[in-house]
Amino acid sequence: MLTGKHLIQGHWTATSDQTFQSVNPKTGEALPTRFTEAGAEEAESALRAALSAFTQTRTFAGTDHADFLEAIAAEIEAQETAAALIGIAEQETALPPARLQGELARTTGQLRLFARIAREGSWQEAVIDTPDPARQPLPKPDLRRILRPIGPVIVFDASNFPFAFGACGGDTASALAAGNPVIVKAHPGHAGTDEMMAQAVLRVVNRLGLPAGIFSLLQGTGTEIGKLLVTHPAAEAVGFTGSQSAGRALFNLASARPRPIPVFAEMGSVNPLVVLPGAVQERAETIADGLAGSITMGVGQFCTKPGLIFYIDDQGGRRFTELLAERLEVSNEGTLLYPALRTRFDETIKSWQGVDGIQTRTTGASSGAANCRPWLLETDSALWRGADELHEEAFGPAALLVRCTDTEDLLSALDLLPGQLTGSIHTGASDEPSNVRSVVGHLEARVGRVVFNGYPTGVEVGFAMQHGGPYPATTASGTTSVGAFAIRRFARPIAYQNLPDALLPPELQQANPLGLLRMVNGEWTQAAA
Amino acid sequence: MLTGKHLIQGHWTATSDQTFQSVNPKTGEALPTRFTEAGAEEAESALRAALSAFTQTRTFAGTDHADFLEAIAAEIEAQETAAALIGIAEQETALPPARLQGELARTTGQLRLFARIAREGSWQEAVIDTPDPARQPLPKPDLRRILRPIGPVIVFDASNFPFAFGACGGDTASALAAGNPVIVKAHPGHAGTDEMMAQAVLRVVNRLGLPAGIFSLLQGTGTEIGKLLVTHPAAEAVGFTGSQSAGRALFNLASARPRPIPVFAEMGSVNPLVVLPGAVQERAETIADGLAGSITMGVGQFCTKPGLIFYIDDQGGRRFTELLAERLEVSNEGTLLYPALRTRFDETIKSWQGVDGIQTRTTGASSGAANCRPWLLETDSALWRGADELHEEAFGPAALLVRCTDTEDLLSALDLLPGQLTGSIHTGASDEPSNVRSVVGHLEARVGRVVFNGYPTGVEVGFAMQHGGPYPATTASGTTSVGAFAIRRFARPIAYQNLPDALLPPELQQANPLGLLRMVNGEWTQAAA
Repeated sequence: MLTGKHLIQGHWTATSDQTFQSVNPKTGEALPTRFTEAGAEEAESALRAALSAFTQTRTFAGTDHADFLEAIAAEIEAQETAAALIGIAEQETALPPARLQGELARTTGQLRLFARIAREGSWQEAVIDTPDPARQPLPKPDLRRILRPIGPVIVFDASNFPFAFGACGGDTASALAAGNPVIVKAHPGHAGTDEMMAQAVLRVVNRLGLPAGIFSLLQGTGTEIGKLLVTHPAAEAVGFTGSQSAGRALFNLASARPRPIPVFAEMGSVNPLVVLPGAVQERAETIADGLAGSITMGVGQFCTKPGLIFYIDDQGGRRFTELLAERLEVSNEGTLLYPALRTRFDETIKSWQGVDGIQTRTTGASSGAANCRPWLLETDSALWRGADELHEEAFGPAALLVRCTDTEDLLSALDLLPGQLTGSIHTGASDEPSNVRSVVGHLEARVGRVVFNGYPTGVEVGFAMQHGGPYPATTASGTTSVGAFAIRRFARPIAYQNLPDALLPPELQQANPLGLLRMVNGEWTQAAA
Repeated sequence: MLTGKHLIQGHWTATSDQTFQSVNPKTGEALPTRFTEAGAEEAESALRAALSAFTQTRTFAGTDHADFLEAIAAEIEAQETAAALIGIAEQETALPPARLQGELARTTGQLRLFARIAREGSWQEAVIDTPDPARQPLPKPDLRRILRPIGPVIVFDASNFPFAFGACGGDTASALAAGNPVIVKAHPGHAGTDEMMAQAVLRVVNRLGLPAGIFSLLQGTGTEIGKLLVTHPAAEAVGFTGSQSAGRALFNLASARPRPIPVFAEMGSVNPLVVLPGAVQERAETIADGLAGSITMGVGQFCTKPGLIFYIDDQGGRRFTELLAERLEVSNEGTLLYPALRTRFDETIKSWQGVDGIQTRTTGASSGAANCRPWLLETDSALWRGADELHEEAFGPAALLVRCTDTEDLLSALDLLPGQLTGSIHTGASDEPSNVRSVVGHLEARVGRVVFNGYPTGVEVGFAMQHGGPYPATTASGTTSVGAFAIRRFARPIAYQNLPDALLPPELQQANPLGLLRMVNGEWTQAAA
């Protein structure tokens, strides 16, 4: 029997006698490794190790953080490790190797992006107000402000991105880049993948001589270990990607602490997509192709999957829905990530179908029990407004068409939507510019990203990405979990008043030894202060 | 009888028959104006008006927000208005006219700082990633990200700054600058000052033809109106300055909403100040003078008042405490802001004095019932560690000396402190540099601002100020309530993917029509994208 372990303070441990196994979603069979459930002792040890590591990492230079992240990237893309990671992730998630290969590349890309950011240093927003001893009535002090790390960060990794939001995914990379130790609570759906990723991190930690508590991995299935971590006095912030109920539960726990801490929970959304009449006149086939691809990509298991499609009930609109249904009918079968997710998906579809007056456009029929094809259902805007069930996200390859009588009807339907990660609009030359403007305006009031004549899946990891949005898409709409600005979640500003140059962090020193772009007396400059 | 009123949708209203009066703290007598208590109806009307205003203000240009703020500044510094404001504020708060004059100047300075920021526009952090249609395996989209306003902001104004954190104080100015409507819940201690300030705003709103719901003022004494505002579905964020219990209560309400919203509560702290032996050797008199001034400034009613003074128990240290006690003994009498605050202050001092072994160094004796002189008490670090009462903030002119055996004892005492707005260190040439470094390091781990050889009162309003710190100093340590970056609290990022130039906000348009400093493909530039 193989035993899965926790990584704490540089050691692999497995003390509890409660175990679990991850499941091969294709066969429904448990994989051979038995992972033990982490409990209070493991949480305490991991947090204590992290606190101890933080006394060192908080004073590391940005280049130290960068070296660490780049070494992890190199370690996990080394041929044998990459092949092994893809092998185990495929077993645990049923995601195809090509997708996993791409996701591993995205993951190393993320690690290197945050390494670049940490190395360069301007993310810390050095801001300097120079003194004026002669000012009346009071002398003006020397004030220098900068973002600094906060301490131990708890990361709950995501089921649907075993690498990119796994143990060394975006939350971990951005928290480490800012100088914080990280404790990852592995996802039980891909516990083995996470363990293998942690092995790679440990090799790097040992090679670079970093403090052992800088990275821990805890295994577990229940809510208890999550609660222990989030309510531990030493925890400073939480990164989470997953369901609304789990994300909100963590947020509630963190907010009710004697000392509340922030929870950056990314909880997905239904991602409305609007198709205006001009768009279907011009390119109904192209949109049907693209949209079918976006709905079924990754078996619909993306938090940005377009799940709600608004169109105007005219000849072009109806023809577009026929084309979309045809595309989905013949799309490839897929396998959902893990059994519980499959159950939840089926239940949501069933509740949609239970609404009186709803039409089923494609049935999601598939050849095997664990596989599925996409579902497409349709309703009109009046029915949709009144049926709470139809406002639920179906996490998987399903979408709901909402037929609107005209643009006004469509806009007032959009106004009923809660916060979303994304909102998309497809439009053509014959659409009234004022209508286009109105749709964009109504979307941007409730989303984090507006997509124009495109699809929300395929989240770009760069500087300008915003992956977040008003609640319930996330619990912190002022932040992003993807892209460069994700690092800001795990830092806080500190100002130094009249501190001698030698005691200042180099980012704030007079001579600007790091050559940073800094704000000096309200103007951005790379000059000395 | 004079009737105080609420300002809602551009109209002055007073419907409730429950009334209250603010009190002259010098005489203890109620002032003549009777203010009515706002209830559910007023909250609903103000929020509805704000939502309606937001449909316009959200698309205003930065220059529109700037014009509004500058016109308010001009309006309240006009000779007659300023004199009237200072007159009523003196009656309601007992703060001396010279202080109020200075505070009014700070307030107009804040309004103009945020006007400058809104007009200039780079606070919105325009970030652009240019497209690459030829990229493999997938084309790279055009992505543009910017901070946008969020909607109605609730501001609870502060007792201790009737202007600078009053109806047109820092929270209001930064929320308006970002493009949000504001609903101010007036402080009952200076309800008349707030009403007069709102009258000035209304004159500007009418003159500039702004939407009436952009600014509302509600009066009330109880917790009920606060609860109604914070739990209203249309509220998007809360700014608060006041006590820990009230701030935490609002935070709990906002976090428990079906759709949680952020609460930026600034709740004060004890602001530890460390005096090392080298400092007292060099300049014991100067420090005693400066510290006595900082403890008694504004009758000790600043959230940055140094309330906890750590020193090393040697001859120099003891002499320093004698000098400090002497200074405080002969300092001017003052009057606390309002009766309930006076009661709380007396209770805290009494609980300090109830600790066995504590010494009273100056007694706070004063000539009249409503006046007071500063209290100075002393304990040793061992006693301080064990006595919870001594960890409470006394809001008023009181400080506690903590005698430490050596630097190690002092550092381990600092580690017991919860989050603080500020931490200060006084040091001299003979202090070991490693000790100085250690004290700075221990302070910065738990404060928002480190002050070197200085005093934490006299908060500078500029770009580099950080007025915030780990809980319980604030509920959002990643933000500041004073200084330029305060504006970021009231905005959220939105990304636009492949949006045509004409539909983009000007800040993000290709040609950079506003000439902003923008991040383009990871580099800061003022060029076109």
